[in-house]
Formats: sequence, C-alpha cells, structure tokens
Amino acid sequence: MKVNNQHYRTIWPDPDNKKIIKIIDQRYLPHRFIIEDLCTVDDFAASIKEMHVRGAGLIGATAGFAMYCACLNAPEKNFTASITNDSQKIIQTRPTAKNLTWAVDRQITVINKCATKEECIEKTFKEACDIADEDADFCRRIGEHGLQLIKEISKKKSGEPVNILTHCNAGWLAFVDYGSATAPIYAAHKAGIKVHVWVDETRPWLQGARLTCWELQEENVPNTLIADNTGGHLMQHGKVDMVIVGTDRTTFTGDVANKIGTYLKALSAKDNNIPFYVALPSSTFDWQIEDGVKQIPIEERSGNEVNYVTGLNDKNELETVLVPLKDTKSANYSFDVTPARLITSLITERGVVAAKREEILKMYPDKKSE
Amino acid sequence: MKVNNQHYRTIWPDPDNKKIIKIIDQRYLPHRFIIEDLCTVDDFAASIKEMHVRGAGLIGATAGFAMYCACLNAPEKNFTASITNDSQKIIQTRPTAKNLTWAVDRQITVINKCATKEECIEKTFKEACDIADEDADFCRRIGEHGLQLIKEISKKKSGEPVNILTHCNAGWLAFVDYGSATAPIYAAHKAGIKVHVWVDETRPWLQGARLTCWELQEENVPNTLIADNTGGHLMQHGKVDMVIVGTDRTTFTGDVANKIGTYLKALSAKDNNIPFYVALPSSTFDWQIEDGVKQIPIEERSGNEVNYVTGLNDKNELETVLVPLKDTKSANYSFDVTPARLITSLITERGVVAAKREEILKMYPDKKSE
Repeated sequence: MKVNNQHYRTIWPDPDNKKIIKIIDQRYLPHRFIIEDLCTVDDFAASIKEMHVRGAGLIGATAGFAMYCACLNAPEKNFTASITNDSQKIIQTRPTAKNLTWAVDRQITVINKCATKEECIEKTFKEACDIADEDADFCRRIGEHGLQLIKEISKKKSGEPVNILTHCNAGWLAFVDYGSATAPIYAAHKAGIKVHVWVDETRPWLQGARLTCWELQEENVPNTLIADNTGGHLMQHGKVDMVIVGTDRTTFTGDVANKIGTYLKALSAKDNNIPFYVALPSSTFDWQIEDGVKQIPIEERSGNEVNYVTGLNDKNELETVLVPLKDTKSANYSFDVTPARLITSLITERGVVAAKREEILKMYPDKKSE
Repeated sequence: MKVNNQHYRTIWPDPDNKKIIKIIDQRYLPHRFIIEDLCTVDDFAASIKEMHVRGAGLIGATAGFAMYCACLNAPEKNFTASITNDSQKIIQTRPTAKNLTWAVDRQITVINKCATKEECIEKTFKEACDIADEDADFCRRIGEHGLQLIKEISKKKSGEPVNILTHCNAGWLAFVDYGSATAPIYAAHKAGIKVHVWVDETRPWLQGARLTCWELQEENVPNTLIADNTGGHLMQHGKVDMVIVGTDRTTFTGDVANKIGTYLKALSAKDNNIPFYVALPSSTFDWQIEDGVKQIPIEERSGNEVNYVTGLNDKNELETVLVPLKDTKSANYSFDVTPARLITSLITERGVVAAKREEILKMYPDKKSE
C-alpha cells in the first residue's frame, strides 16, 4: 500500500543484492519511517521477537525469508544441523503466531527435497518470495469477499458511512500487502463506498494508534482513534455497524486467537447484535487444535511494555516515559481467544465461512489431513 | 489512607486558615505528591474540570466546599444571584458525575435556610465538612459490607489469595477516604485475608496505573497492573475471583455509569460466571433516571487525552509524549453504562443489594420521593 504516495510492501529482497532482505522497522512508526536490512538469522529472529515486524502474515513472510537466510549462511558440512537449529530459533520467537511454524515447515519441506546447498538457497528464496506473493494475493482476495459484506450494510445506511471497528493492526503492515481486516475496508473505499473506521489504540503496544491510524491516513480512509475501553459504549449507541479484526491463530473449530482485548469486543458485539468478522488467510489456521481457549499458547511479554510508553516529545524526538511508579508489577498477555460462538463469520481468501468446524472443513477439504 | 505512612484525606480545610481548602493535585501522581490550595470558585471549578480532583465522592466533597467558597466570596448585595451563578459553574464542570449536583443541591438547601451571608458561610462550611465526613464514613461502611463477600470467596481458596479485578480508581483518592471499590479490599487486607488486585490501567487518563497501583502500594496490598484489554483473558483462565468497581451515577433501577470500559468487564464477568460488584455511597444514586444506557449523559473530553501520555522521562522529569501522528482524530468518551442485568450486587453503606429497582427502593424507602 502507499507511504507518501509510493507503493511499498512490508518485506522485500534488496533488488541490488538478494542476500539482503529489507523490512520497515515498525517500532518507529508513525513518527519515523525506517527501513532495516536483515542479513543473518539472528537479525531475523530479533526482528520478529522485538517486533520490528509483527502481525500474522508478515511474521510468516519474515520466517520464510529467515529460512532462506539460514540456507545462505549455513556451513556446507553440518548443513542440516545448522538449518534445524536456526528453524528452532525462528519458531521460538513468538509462541502464539501460527504463520511462523507454517512458513518454517513449508521451507523445511522445500529444503528436504533439495540435493545441494546451492539448490536450497535458490529454492528457499523462490519459496519465500512465493509465500510473500501468496500472502499479498490472499489478502487481496479477502478484500474482495469482505467488500460484499460492507456493500450489504452500506445499502441500509442511506448515504451515511459504514462504521467499522477494528482492534490492533491487521492492516497491510501486519501482512505483506492489503492486510486482512483492512483489505475489505480498502476495497470498499476504492469502490467509492463511504466507510469510517473506529481504531482501538490497542494497549500495550499501541498498534492501533501507531500503525492502523497511520496506514488508513496514508490511504485517505476516514478514521477515529479511541481507547480500547470505548467500543462497548459505541456499540450500545448504534455507532458501530460491524467489527472486523484479524487473527494470529484460528482453530479449525473457529476459535480465534487475536490481540488481547479482542474477546471483549466480541462479547460486546454479541450483546448489541452487531456482526463480528474475523479476516484471515488460511495460513493462520491451526488444523490440529480443537479448543482455542484451552489449547492455544498465549505469549507473555515484558511488563515494561505496559509500564512505559514511547512517543514524540515537544522537541520532536522519540522519548519513552514511565507511567506508574518504577517497579510497579505488571502482566502483559499478548493475545486472548475469542470462542467461535461469538463470531459471525470468518473472511478467508476462499470466501466467507461460518466459524464452525464442519463449514471450515467443507471450505478446506484439503487441509485437515495435512 | 496512608501516603508515606502518614494519614491523609483527599480534601481538607487548612487548619490555620479555613478560607483555604487543600487538595492533592492528582494530575501529578504517582511521581509527584503536590498539595494545592483552592481559594476561589474558579479554582474549584478548574480543579474538577481539569481533574486535579476526580472520582465520584471526591467530586461531591469538592463541590460541597466550592459552594462554601461561593458564599465566602459572594458580594452582600446580589448574594443570591452570585450563588446561583457559581452553582451553575460548578455543576457544569462534569456532566456524568451525580455527586456533583447532589452536593450542590444539598448546599443550596442549607443556604436557603440562612438569614445572612455570615450564617451562610458558617453553615455551608459545616455542611461541606459533614459531606466529607459522611463520604468517609459511608466508604468505611461499604468496606465492612464488602469484606463479608471477600471472606466468603476466601473460604474456597484454600489459602490462595482472592483475585479481585478493578477498573479505574474507585480508591480513597476518588473519595475522601477508604474509597468505594477499594474499601472492601483494604478491610480484607487489614483483617488478614490474602488479596491480590488486578489493576486495569484505565486509558485514556490511566487512573489505574497512576492512582490505584500507587494507593494499593502505599497500603502494601499486592497488585498487578494490566492493560484494559487483559481482564477477559484472565477471567477465561480462572485468574479472577470477583470484580469490584465504583460508579459515577447509578439509576434506582440498578444501571451503572462508570469509567469507560466497565461495561466490557461486566460482559466478560457474566460470560465466565464471575461475580461483578459495584460499590457506591448512596450519594451516587440518581433517583430520577430509569434507563441508564439511554438517559445518563456521557461526558466527552478532549481527544488530546487519548493522543498524549504523560510520564517520567529518563531525567526523572514529567514529560508528555504524542503517540499517533499529530492531528490524528480521536474520540474520548469518559464513561459507559453497565446495564443492571450484568451486575451481581451493589455494595452500599447500608449493605449489599441486588441491582434491581424493587430491592434498591426497599433499602432506600426514604429516597425515591425526594
């Protein structure tokens, strides 16, 4: 999508030196637009763990290129041991994100079919590019399917904008392009349908305030930033027509792990009869887990992300401030699980599907047996 | 309660000059403990509007002293017009808080019975002190009633702490002493019952992170700060035994206006069969309004409170930083309304009562006719 009217993806190989993979370092957005070079597996692992990159699809695409980088840098002898070690390093960066293991497994399948290191490098580069292209293409298709849902609601709004609430950033910054939750919004905006987005700021990391508002503004989509506490009140008062969020892992029974706080919005949508949609490429499905609440591992991150906030000071410098007293104990769970019963439908690259085991398996008959 | 082991109330007349009323300027907590002198009605109005003081009971107590200050400063001639003007100025500072009009009306009743300005000054001073004392006493009694509820839960915990989630600050800083939601917690802690408090940070003003954590720490009550998004996940995983919150206005039918986000926690408590209590002195009841969601006016404050965060920088100075891009549009609704159906019980100074019209009126037979 656009940054300063120029088209970007969130990850791409350096056109002059394909040993270097480039990302937007999202820690500094929206105040600084910094492009970072990733050259080693440690660079890749740090970029995922420390959230230079984040979001379901982008974590997957980054892991894809990380495995290519592992091949590039592995010694000829002990090649397999090196790859195994690196793949573990990559997988361990974020426990909840399904796309991470999905992309690593996909590359390992490729590697296992190659005869030489050179072939591994060539094939994993191609596969990483394919993963990224596929992610962008799947998100574009999510946009087409979701557009129909927005169109339907728009018909009842007599020219008023369709008010869509979203949580966290499931925008193009969380994928390679288009985004999952934002893809239908961008498609509707492009199709001339009036939309307005309520953006949850999404504490503690503030993905909504820092990333979603920024990318919507770059695309000229009207939006209003709100504290995460606000959605319930807006829904009670008819100010939300639909909710669309992304997901980091979705069970084949329709339970959805997404950014902490998603479950609260789903409860409120249910209580106010507002449709609650989850947008995802199928790479986010977990085909093994049945009970999301009980079985999906939930990442716990440092309490410092709760206690400290970074922003621009009055000298236009990025500065970090401490909100509670130093040494205040805090807990930082990154995700929660929204049970399928609270979800109206999933929007995938294949279409809109009920968050129900039988419907999901009917749409993906090829997947469960994998 | 205690600050640095010394007992404080949140508002008190200067013992050396009773024309001066002293408050703790809560905008600077927890990093700075600043006591401010209020001498004019404009001082009082600004202190409420700009949140030097906040919280149901403390807003009421401050309004009580503000009306005394209005009497002190009113000219002999045009005394009544001056008082009327000042009372409007005070009432208009915060639209949702019921205690504000309650205290102002109480003082007007006093003023209407006085013959002279001097008598007004004397009687409104006494009444303001009575309002403050009564607030402290009612909160103490809320603590006694709530203690029984915590005791019951404690019996089932086999020595493990009772985990209590609270939202915003309904602590002693929101009242004159003890607090409403915190009074049962302090009482339980004093009685040797193990408690642990999950403190919602409470965006955008961060009352939880800045005030609730601080006051719990000063009283040595174990607590953990969490982003507002977190409570649902904790409840799904059995980490919350009960919720206790305060309220800024409660209808006689049991609907509760409290800090924005309260409704979301109530939905989650209901979904997980966790008791959800609201603690309030009866001064917070609105005896006119039947439907809280439709009828309670909800304050909208500046979007700057969402876009900017204040904390301590690494030079130990208070600094304000901008999170999203400058000029990002944001909305800032201060309260939401939790419908009575989601509330287990109200804890008032008279006892624990179901959030139901008939039960509330049975407990307060003297009130509805006022």
